[in-house]
Parts: sequence; C-alpha cells; structure tokens
Amino acid sequence: MSRTRIAFERCRVLLFHEAMSFAQPLVATPQTMHFEEPLALTSGASLRDYDLSFETYGTLNAERSNAVLVCHALNASHHVAGVYLNAQGQVIPRSEGWWDTMMGPGKPLDTNRFFVIGVNNLGSCFGSTGPMHVNPDTGQVWGADFPVVTVEDWVHAQARLLDRLGIAQLAAVMGGSLGGMQALAWTLQHPERVRHAVVVASAPNLTAENIAFNEVARRAIVTDPDFHGGHFYRHGTIPRRGLRIARMIGHITYLSDDVMNEKFGRQLRSLAGEVAANRPYQFSTQDIEFEIESYLRHQGDKFAEYFDANTYLLITRALDYFDPARAHGGDLSRALAPARAQFLLVSFSTDWRFSPARSRELVKALLDNQRDVSYAEIDAPHGHDAFLLEDPRYLGVVRSYFDKVTL
Amino acid sequence: MSRTRIAFERCRVLLFHEAMSFAQPLVATPQTMHFEEPLALTSGASLRDYDLSFETYGTLNAERSNAVLVCHALNASHHVAGVYLNAQGQVIPRSEGWWDTMMGPGKPLDTNRFFVIGVNNLGSCFGSTGPMHVNPDTGQVWGADFPVVTVEDWVHAQARLLDRLGIAQLAAVMGGSLGGMQALAWTLQHPERVRHAVVVASAPNLTAENIAFNEVARRAIVTDPDFHGGHFYRHGTIPRRGLRIARMIGHITYLSDDVMNEKFGRQLRSLAGEVAANRPYQFSTQDIEFEIESYLRHQGDKFAEYFDANTYLLITRALDYFDPARAHGGDLSRALAPARAQFLLVSFSTDWRFSPARSRELVKALLDNQRDVSYAEIDAPHGHDAFLLEDPRYLGVVRSYFDKVTL
Repeated sequence: MSRTRIAFERCRVLLFHEAMSFAQPLVATPQTMHFEEPLALTSGASLRDYDLSFETYGTLNAERSNAVLVCHALNASHHVAGVYLNAQGQVIPRSEGWWDTMMGPGKPLDTNRFFVIGVNNLGSCFGSTGPMHVNPDTGQVWGADFPVVTVEDWVHAQARLLDRLGIAQLAAVMGGSLGGMQALAWTLQHPERVRHAVVVASAPNLTAENIAFNEVARRAIVTDPDFHGGHFYRHGTIPRRGLRIARMIGHITYLSDDVMNEKFGRQLRSLAGEVAANRPYQFSTQDIEFEIESYLRHQGDKFAEYFDANTYLLITRALDYFDPARAHGGDLSRALAPARAQFLLVSFSTDWRFSPARSRELVKALLDNQRDVSYAEIDAPHGHDAFLLEDPRYLGVVRSYFDKVTL
Repeated sequence: MSRTRIAFERCRVLLFHEAMSFAQPLVATPQTMHFEEPLALTSGASLRDYDLSFETYGTLNAERSNAVLVCHALNASHHVAGVYLNAQGQVIPRSEGWWDTMMGPGKPLDTNRFFVIGVNNLGSCFGSTGPMHVNPDTGQVWGADFPVVTVEDWVHAQARLLDRLGIAQLAAVMGGSLGGMQALAWTLQHPERVRHAVVVASAPNLTAENIAFNEVARRAIVTDPDFHGGHFYRHGTIPRRGLRIARMIGHITYLSDDVMNEKFGRQLRSLAGEVAANRPYQFSTQDIEFEIESYLRHQGDKFAEYFDANTYLLITRALDYFDPARAHGGDLSRALAPARAQFLLVSFSTDWRFSPARSRELVKALLDNQRDVSYAEIDAPHGHDAFLLEDPRYLGVVRSYFDKVTL
C-alpha cells in the first residue's frame, strides 16, 4: 500500500498556473503509470506488462471519496479537460481536453469538488500500451498482432490504476458513447466500487447497422495497400486512404441529417475554397463541389495524420463485442442485476447512432432491478455529437446530478 | 417518320415463349438504338453520337397512347421486367428484371394493357454509351473523361428514343429513387408528353447526408490505387477495393436499422460460413465475426465484379446535382410550375435515404400548382429498398393508380 500511495503522490497533476495573464485555466499534465502484472484479457490472450496514460484534475479528498473516472470513446484519450502549456508556460491553442465543456472548476463535473481521472485505454495510440508499441516478447512493434481488447478488459486495467491511486471506491464513473459502455461495465464488474454511473449517449450493445458502419470503416483500412496486413510501420507507410474513409463514414454517423442540412445543406464550395451557393456547378465527379464534401475530406485528412489504423480496428471491435446481455441469453435485465450504483442516463433525440431507444432499454433493465435511475432525453439537433457539445439543458442535467452526489 | 416507324418495328421484343413448360414467363430481349445526332449536355460538353440500350414489354396500341417509360436508379439497367432465355430457349435462373414484381402480364403495371419501355442511361455500364466505350474523337476508351451527365441529360436522350419509337406522349413515366427524379424531370422538360408520373421513394434533391454518403463512396473508388485516375482499363486493373466499400456503404443506406436488426441483428457467422449465434467470439479485428459483416462483404464482392467504377462516379454525381428548385432560388413550387401531368407519389416510412418528408415536399409543391396528386406513405420496415420489394399495399396502390389511367 505504501508503494501505491507514493505512486499516487507522484501522479498528482492539477496545476493552476498562476503566471497566466488571463483567467486561470485548468492545466493538464499527462502521466504514465507502468504495470508489471500481466493482464489476462477476455480473448484468452494476455498482456505481459503495460503502461496506462492518464490525467487527473482536482484534489482527492482525505476520505478518498470524491474520485470520478471518465472513460473515453473511439478517438479520444486521457486528455479529458484542461489545456496544455508549452515550454514557455503558455497555453497551447486548441489544446482543450475533449470534454472540457463538462468538467473543470465550476463546470457541471466540478473539479473544485471532485477529483477527476481521465485514462487512455489499452490499444490506443495516445500513450497507453497499444499497437504502435513494442511487444516485449518479440522486440517488434505489435501492429496487427496487438491482442483484441474489450470494454471489460479496459475496466479491468482501469481498476488496477485506481488501486495504485489508492481509490477503493469511485464517487462516479462517467462516459459517453463507448465511454458509457465502460461506465456500465464498471457497475457490473466492480459493483461495490461505483456509487454513481453517468452513461451518456450510449447503448447496451451495437445494432447491426452500427456494426455495419464499423465493418465498412475497417474494410477500408484493411484493404488499403499501405496497411500491409497491419504491419505498415515496418514498411514506412500509413494506410491514409483507409483512415480517411473510416473517418468520413464516422463523421456522417456522428451528425444528424438535420444538423448536416443546417450546417452544410447543398452549399457549394468555390474552387478557391470559399462557400459560394450560387455559382454554377463545375460538373466534375472528382473535384469538390459541395461544402459537405470539403468538410468530410478535411476531417478525413486530419484524422489520417494522427490516428493509428490498428487502434481504429481494435476500438471499433471493442464496440462491436460489447454486449453484457449475451451471457444471459439476451436478457438485459438479468445482465444488469449485479449493478449497485445509482444511474444517470442521458440521450439525444437526433442521435441515430446511439438512439434514445437504446438508452431507454438500459433504463428499463435497471428499473427491473430496482436501481435508482435518472434519465434525461435531450431534444438536441446535433445527433451523436451532442454529447460533446455545450447544450445548457444537457450540462444542467449533469450539473444537478453531480450536485446531489454526496462525498 | 418512316425511318422511325421501321426502327420501332425492329425493336418490338415482347415474346411469350410458347415452348416453355411452366407458366409462360415474360421474356425480355435487350435492344440497342444508335443515335447519330450529337447530344448537348447540361455541363456544356456534348456526346457526338451514342447508343441507348432498352427493352420493351407489351404492345404499343394503335393510338400509341399506352406507353409507359420506366427510369432506373443507381445500379439498374434497361432490364426492368421479364427473364432472359439462354441459347436453348431455357429461362436463365435469376434473370428477372429489377422491377419484375411491379410490371408484367397481370401485374400492377400490366403489360397486357401498357407498352412498357425500360431504357439504360447514358454513362451506365450495362449497354448504353458510357465510360467503358470508345470516345470517337480519340479512339480511346472514355474512362474518367466521359462527360458528366445529369438527370436532365438522361431525359433528353430518353425523349429522342421515344421519338424514334414513334411515341409522342407517354401514358406515364415511372421511376423509384433516382428513377423518380427522372420521372419528375420528364414532367418539367416535356410537360406535354407526360400524362401521368409515378414517383416512388424519391426526393426533390439530395440532402447533405445523401451527398456525404455518395462522396465517401466516390473517395473510396478514386483513392483506390487501381483506379489510375479513372483510366484503369488501360492498366488492366479494376478498383475493386473502392467499389466494394462503395457498395457496402450503399447497402447500409438502402436498409432500415429495424430490418437490419431483424435480418442480421448481432448474429454471428461461424468460420465454416454458418450462422451460429451462440458460439464464442473469435476475437479478431479482420475476420468475419457477425452475420451483417458477411452480408456486406458478399454484396461488395459481387458488385465489384460487375459494376464500372466510372459509372458509379457519374451516377452518384447525377444524383448530387439534381435540384430543379436551384434555378428558382430554392423555390420548389415555382420549379414544378411547368408540370402538367397527374402524379402518384409513394414513400416508405422507414426510408431514411429518401424519407417520406422529401416526398411530402414534392406533394406540397405540386399542390401549390393545383396539380392532381395522389400520395401514399407506406408503413414498411424495409427502408429505401422497399420500393423494389413485394409489399401488397404498395403494389396495390400502384395497381389502382394504373387501373385509372385512361388510354
């Protein structure tokens, strides 16, 4: 235990950087913890040892009762909130964490009250052990040989991180989308360690359509000649074409039809890169004609520069595989019986990737087990993306919920 | 005119093949007509000469008043109804036309009463002049240099075919999806030549989301190294990877989430190719795990063997560009003012590609112009695909409508 305590002290990272001239921002510092103990995976494989990257915000109270674990979705990381500083102590522009609207000092998940932990999942490309790292058994980069990891494996690894941070029980576990699946899995794998679970824009499993979109994205990556069976690192290539297609598909499914029409509609983009609704068509099959095409290509290009192809395969597969009811003949109520936490579920009316109906399935199954469940269905136009956006009703619901969480 | 008449006589193809031992099927024979007159295209380019492939079913009456033109959608052809025979006079299995449920003797569009014409669009890969043919100006295969064609260009070419068949006025023009856009365009470009228009599962233009899906499919094709800038024919390659991805995306959008869940759900497919819901997961990112993956890969593989990549680009672009309201500042009612036809519109409740709301926009704009409009919204689970399926309510609506069409 003393070793755990020391590790924890080393890992405290929240800084209010007093030298900043404008309102003090929450400054984040990524940390890495190494785990020597092998991790047995759901697949039967195991990881001999591994690192987890994480960040924390706020201060763990003396009772160690105010910790909130935030789980990330497909392309996010442990950098949940705050900003990064450069070597000169200046805020790096656009370095805000992916859920910075949700948590920080005075925000819905208030880091003045809670000690928030963001952790990067195994298999990621943002710090925790993943396919870009070296397999200690072979001395070679893992690549496509990195073992398939599941939501349950991530929870297992996260639990070990909490052990090392000296946190026996979480005030709450929280996540959106795939992160919500992890929050749910926490309540099943470690029911005594979770007092509250906040599950946003999530689902008890993927539908056939969800799996279908994942599969098309994976096929685009795997059939890119630059993928080289997943060992592209040693060929000095990146399957950018596949990653671009994967990301474009993803973006379509994150947005609602309505918000796409509102943001892009049938607007044209001029050859010079300007929006120009009323210019004549160019009559080209390959050049950008519509604004939505420009947006998607840009998103695809950006993604292909920073995201790892093997990570994409692994994380979409973790999504596909998650299905707690499967071991119970499809009976979700039976599957959720171990949960002891209180729940807040939130869904968004125009989210067709993880629709409100899927959240309602979870609500029903939890109520079947006499769990304490709050559920908010937010009428938002933004589709699945809404869970990352600044909607006052949504943020208000989460704030009220956390205000009631006793420490 | 005498030349037109002769051409028409040569082109009559409907045969009841008396030698067949079972119920006489409608037998189709594809025909090709050559057009020497250049076709000026919307883009400003022109086709010097061209062929149109077509089929006809039923008999043109003496008054020439019973012709119905059927327009096809993305991956279909002039082979609308009936079957093909092999050299021995036997029916070729699975050779039914793509709308064989809808038209034929005694069917909703009854070929005992109507003379039905199916025509393949310019730019296609199924017979009419397209990118796989030789550009007469260069002696080279067109490839990516085939000019961009629009819905309006297709209607223009179809009108010339009708001229040659000696048909001054159509009893009806009919189409689903992109075919419905052509039917609508017919009523605007040749209002005096169309008495009825049957527009099924269509829209006044594509939404941003529709364009987005088209764009991802096109990018998958164009960035396939085997595409070679659209001149893959001369490299002896086919951009199969891109075509597969395009088709997989297409299939997802043709089906509803509901029907996908019903047909595939989270069913697994065994390594031996059998559906096996309860076997353990294989924990692989690249092997087929779920039944839906198997289905999509199969559809993609099939498509890549028969469909031309440049045709895919051209036809999706024709979809993107169609927007009759564009020339009227987005005012659809003004755009549809020239129409003189009576209309039947049909949409399907779970069609999220061309939703009922889009058909209702058309209904409203036609009513604004005091047009005679019948509209049926069919509560069908099958998504966009429903327009090709055998739903008794849907077929009943179309049958009733055609029963009232006077000749």
